[in-house]
Amino acid sequence: MRVRQSRNPATKAGSATAATARRRGPKPNPDTPRNLLRSGVRLLHAGGYSATGIQDIVAAAEVPKGSFYNHFPSKEAFGVAAVDLYFGEALPTLQTELSDTRVPPLDRLRTYFSSRTQRLKRAGFARGCMLGNLSLEVADHSPPIRARLSAHFEAWARLFESCIAEAQATGAVVNPLPAALLANHLLDGWEGALLRMRVERSTEPLERFQTVTFRALLV
Amino acid sequence: MRVRQSRNPATKAGSATAATARRRGPKPNPDTPRNLLRSGVRLLHAGGYSATGIQDIVAAAEVPKGSFYNHFPSKEAFGVAAVDLYFGEALPTLQTELSDTRVPPLDRLRTYFSSRTQRLKRAGFARGCMLGNLSLEVADHSPPIRARLSAHFEAWARLFESCIAEAQATGAVVNPLPAALLANHLLDGWEGALLRMRVERSTEPLERFQTVTFRALLV
Repeated sequence: MRVRQSRNPATKAGSATAATARRRGPKPNPDTPRNLLRSGVRLLHAGGYSATGIQDIVAAAEVPKGSFYNHFPSKEAFGVAAVDLYFGEALPTLQTELSDTRVPPLDRLRTYFSSRTQRLKRAGFARGCMLGNLSLEVADHSPPIRARLSAHFEAWARLFESCIAEAQATGAVVNPLPAALLANHLLDGWEGALLRMRVERSTEPLERFQTVTFRALLV
Repeated sequence: MRVRQSRNPATKAGSATAATARRRGPKPNPDTPRNLLRSGVRLLHAGGYSATGIQDIVAAAEVPKGSFYNHFPSKEAFGVAAVDLYFGEALPTLQTELSDTRVPPLDRLRTYFSSRTQRLKRAGFARGCMLGNLSLEVADHSPPIRARLSAHFEAWARLFESCIAEAQATGAVVNPLPAALLANHLLDGWEGALLRMRVERSTEPLERFQTVTFRALLV
């Protein structure tokens, strides 16, 4: 698979059309980029990168195709922005849950994984984590998307790391491996459990992950 | 994404053409299905399911398009056969390496993961595991492909399980969690480490996985 950049001849034409529209037509909607991204995240998450065409995105957002190229020079640039929106919207909750020092650090991690397990069950075990999905589908082919996936995984792992370091400091965890190593391992293991969940359509891989994590690893 | 079945009108026409070819043209090549599958595995592994068209597969195998529909009723049926070929070709080596009772069971697992790490490094951290890739891209959309992924993951985990059970029986591993649970967790964790490897383009996630596995889990 090649991730094509600006291959669509409409890129320039789109800008020209927009300029004309600015002179003649209705006022541009300032929400259009965000509407495109919200629709795009939904489609990319459910169907994947290659299966989602720009035509699908503009149709779902109910905007004319030219609008896409007014805001995003290519599908790849859109993919980068979609990855940022997806993680940017998840991050505040993640931070609130995992940095709440009123709750013991291992309990924060336990609640995090068990609440996600329930949510994934309600979603019928579909879609999983969009960052994980695009890691396997697109990371080989798009350095810019790969760079954003890497940055978001790093930020996510750091939240796990602070819980683990705190639990090690209080003696709740005696495992002497470095907190950063355990945190990144935890994140990778969770992505792997989500992968297997998609195949098994069951919470079992997620529960297995939690059993091993809290009975053999963070002890 | 929809996984389309038999949507191509050439399916029936293809069979008719083949019948004509049998009467008039050169002898059909008995290797064609396998050639198609070999090319298909290469393309599916490198680019993913949606990005690989039937046209790409027949072009890579250097056979006429009609041949595809003589052997496979749909892209989905081809996907099932490609998944079976991919795992079927890996399985004998897997069995040899992981069932060699002359080698201590933990050493078998250690060698397995470290040899794969070296191979993935040589491959530039690209492509990863086709079973994992299709789990995230296709499992939601294709029950037949999902069923084969599930069966192959199960067979693979069973080989890990026998090593772990043996190590527990000899006291080399004192972790009392069930061998089947640990084995499946190991497999999911390995798939997760491969996922992160694709993003980081480094052996670090794979080495982290091995450190945690052999210093904190299988102990």
